[in-house]
Amino acid sequence: MSSKPLILVTNDDSIHAKGLHKLVQILRPLGEVVVIASEQMMSGMSHAVTIKTPLMPRLVKQEEGYTEYITNGTPVDNVKIGRHRLLDRKPDLIVSGINHGSNAAINIVYSGTMAAAMEGAIEGIPAIGFSLDDFDLEADFSHVAPYVELITRKVLDEGLPEGICLNVNIPKKSDQPIKGIKTVRQAKARWVEEFEQRTDPYGRQYYWMGGVFENGDPRPDTDEKAMAENYVAVVPVKVDFTADQYLDQIKFPS
Amino acid sequence: MSSKPLILVTNDDSIHAKGLHKLVQILRPLGEVVVIASEQMMSGMSHAVTIKTPLMPRLVKQEEGYTEYITNGTPVDNVKIGRHRLLDRKPDLIVSGINHGSNAAINIVYSGTMAAAMEGAIEGIPAIGFSLDDFDLEADFSHVAPYVELITRKVLDEGLPEGICLNVNIPKKSDQPIKGIKTVRQAKARWVEEFEQRTDPYGRQYYWMGGVFENGDPRPDTDEKAMAENYVAVVPVKVDFTADQYLDQIKFPS
Repeated sequence: MSSKPLILVTNDDSIHAKGLHKLVQILRPLGEVVVIASEQMMSGMSHAVTIKTPLMPRLVKQEEGYTEYITNGTPVDNVKIGRHRLLDRKPDLIVSGINHGSNAAINIVYSGTMAAAMEGAIEGIPAIGFSLDDFDLEADFSHVAPYVELITRKVLDEGLPEGICLNVNIPKKSDQPIKGIKTVRQAKARWVEEFEQRTDPYGRQYYWMGGVFENGDPRPDTDEKAMAENYVAVVPVKVDFTADQYLDQIKFPS
Repeated sequence: MSSKPLILVTNDDSIHAKGLHKLVQILRPLGEVVVIASEQMMSGMSHAVTIKTPLMPRLVKQEEGYTEYITNGTPVDNVKIGRHRLLDRKPDLIVSGINHGSNAAINIVYSGTMAAAMEGAIEGIPAIGFSLDDFDLEADFSHVAPYVELITRKVLDEGLPEGICLNVNIPKKSDQPIKGIKTVRQAKARWVEEFEQRTDPYGRQYYWMGGVFENGDPRPDTDEKAMAENYVAVVPVKVDFTADQYLDQIKFPS
């Protein structure tokens, strides 16, 4: 058994994504890295799990301190099968990403990358999801390494509170330097959907989902605000949907 | 335009599910009902959205006060395309279910049924997800009507706070009568996964996901506890993952 920390790495942009390769490059000096990533793109898959079909992970690379599996599953499947079948011990850390595109604000709920990190939190394993605010397949990740390394080292050294993972969003590469790292809250922002209608060769209507992102949250301490000011935004995330403040208000006759 | 409330109905067990048909039967006297449900089973699809392929909804039934579409999308897709393309006005209420199987505790994060309700909350539309604690395709729904009707009427009459939806879980039919309705919090419980390994005819290993549900939450006011005592459990749900209590604790050098 290695004395280096065991780091399970996944994402939702697939094994082929530039952001995943960048993440592996940053993490390999920090521990024993096992990548378990989907063969196909899994963006927008949220916390989906595969129950209608079986999982078939394939070991595709194994070298000193580095192992790579590809799967037919979702990001959450990858965490589950890694934890319970493929790894010989509980990982010390789960890192997901680096996502091509922001997972700040409401994007977190649709994101397979953040769902994998949250599955870590559910399993009691410290977990971080990293995202870059740039959807491009060829996005420029050249500025991210110091922040990914600093945050990862801190979590490896200090752990995270039980049930908590981090949603880390990094501003797109620009002429302006990143100003620092801020711990902030999820902004109340949403997508306003626009479905583009087309007609197939047989005369049937079909629709492509698209939309415009709208941030109407004026609070000064949100992830969207921090990103807009060129800070790396870190949101401590829990997987408890209870709206505590309404527990006493919503009452039914008994 | 009808003066009756417009109720958008979906689920994750597909258009063919007994729980959906039961829900429609209960809701039709309460408003104008539009069902937009998936042709295929979408259990475990969580908040997944379809972005790799287009959506092709089909109108399959239209009669006085009742319309039915089937789609190739997920439960969240169904809410989105309903809201933004298929309906001629904003629905007054979104109701999802009745799910075959509990969505209490951590099940909420994997559930397509609850994701559809949460999408309603994100859209600013009052929404309720109903689930029965019985996975059976032929589950007995004969005891649910009074509770589904009471909770739906209350939400139609009074609305819900902005951004809040309800996760309603109903105990399985038994000899014991339901004791009432309790407003409670999401229990801290989780699935302990067990992947069953098999070998395909070509010698390759594959795995079916399974698991055992573990509730170790001793608090008296949880959904699991209420269900165990034969109450209908109502959790007010918000889609904000921020772990507020750690905002000041997790700090990075700036």
